[in-house]
Amino acid sequence: MNILVTNDDGIASSGIYALTAALRRLGTVTVVAPDRQQSAVGHALTVSEPLRVTRIWRDGQFFGYAVSGTPADCVKLAIARLLETPPDIVVSGINHGYNTGINVLYSGTVSAATEAMLLGIPAIAVSLGSFDESADCSVAAQTAAYLVEHYHELGIPPKTLLNVNVPPLPEEQIKGVRITRQGQGMWNDAYEERLDPMGRPYYWLRGIYNHLDSDPNADDVAVEHGYIAITPIRFHLTDEETISRLKERF
Amino acid sequence: MNILVTNDDGIASSGIYALTAALRRLGTVTVVAPDRQQSAVGHALTVSEPLRVTRIWRDGQFFGYAVSGTPADCVKLAIARLLETPPDIVVSGINHGYNTGINVLYSGTVSAATEAMLLGIPAIAVSLGSFDESADCSVAAQTAAYLVEHYHELGIPPKTLLNVNVPPLPEEQIKGVRITRQGQGMWNDAYEERLDPMGRPYYWLRGIYNHLDSDPNADDVAVEHGYIAITPIRFHLTDEETISRLKERF
Repeated sequence: MNILVTNDDGIASSGIYALTAALRRLGTVTVVAPDRQQSAVGHALTVSEPLRVTRIWRDGQFFGYAVSGTPADCVKLAIARLLETPPDIVVSGINHGYNTGINVLYSGTVSAATEAMLLGIPAIAVSLGSFDESADCSVAAQTAAYLVEHYHELGIPPKTLLNVNVPPLPEEQIKGVRITRQGQGMWNDAYEERLDPMGRPYYWLRGIYNHLDSDPNADDVAVEHGYIAITPIRFHLTDEETISRLKERF
Repeated sequence: MNILVTNDDGIASSGIYALTAALRRLGTVTVVAPDRQQSAVGHALTVSEPLRVTRIWRDGQFFGYAVSGTPADCVKLAIARLLETPPDIVVSGINHGYNTGINVLYSGTVSAATEAMLLGIPAIAVSLGSFDESADCSVAAQTAAYLVEHYHELGIPPKTLLNVNVPPLPEEQIKGVRITRQGQGMWNDAYEERLDPMGRPYYWLRGIYNHLDSDPNADDVAVEHGYIAITPIRFHLTDEETISRLKERF
């Protein structure tokens, strides 16, 4: 099995290292990841600049390709140029920080999986609920490996990806797996206004995440309750009901 | 009526100027737009840098705020900081180039409307099928003005936005309006490999857009046929059918 691994935290992140280690026993792993942190980059593509590719080595072994672009760039470039054959599956992560609720829309981790799905390749995004670079990624890595190994038994349709979120708990405290919906949790935004040394204002985004859901099957509620949340995601964006309404008018 | 106007081509684009001019007769228009081109930026947010805001003047009149960020940043910052009251509607555009088919997922123009929709505000994205900065934006601007004026009669639900694409034709050659679905059109990607003056390779994305649809109600087909395409878009990303299948397993 050929497995493409990417992320949005950048190729130097501990999460991608743990993920790669767990997947190597399942097949040939190729890492193509951003050369630096690309958080909240959404499903962005680099179109007005060229991409640079650097080979990264670890412990004397070739580790992977660092790309001067976004997670979606990495998947596109890997498939179009860097890989000899298209991968059988793409795994994005392990992200530091949940990609649940509204965050799915801003997530570079999910966008890499989305790009793979658009190109017809099975895809999994994996996130761990901790911003600590030294957090234990083993449960998240094992979960990813399990899903890769059993992907074809799960009956996931071609235009659907799996968005996996793992609580930052030791294995024995994980309560199990929940198949979840994307929750309604979102940010209460605020921008701090500060003054630079010249006295000119600048604005910095900060926010408080609100769990608006009480549904235990919402992704952000399930992880709070200690479950691994697996949400099948697809991009059928057309609102069919509203089409009927608008057609009466136009 | 308070109208917030933004785009992804940047505040200097001719499209946002034409849009603003058409909307001013309907209410108070505030422009908050990126200070430079932000194409294919997806639903990105700027989180690891602060945002700068510059006041832009045209013909001795205050035109709007230029923000050192993405379209989604502009909407968030406008609502959190720059506007005294939340806008009644957000209009994003007029983009130079269609946002149909797969492009909807990469579109900064649509992402600004998405951000407004997420914040509970009616939103319209408007794109013109021409990359020519001197293209006539009048049909697109009139269409946007019509939709803003009649928005509340259209029965659009709160979590749905309108994605409008206008062919680059004189008004008399436009065949009418079609209520459309997001098409299946996507890019056949290729990356050109070039060598820099140091002999090091770099990669540049190029692609050919494929209209995979024959459905006349697909957005990219409708505009090809000379119709203004209006697609209601929503972000219910959870694949409910796959949830049932996965629940049998976990």
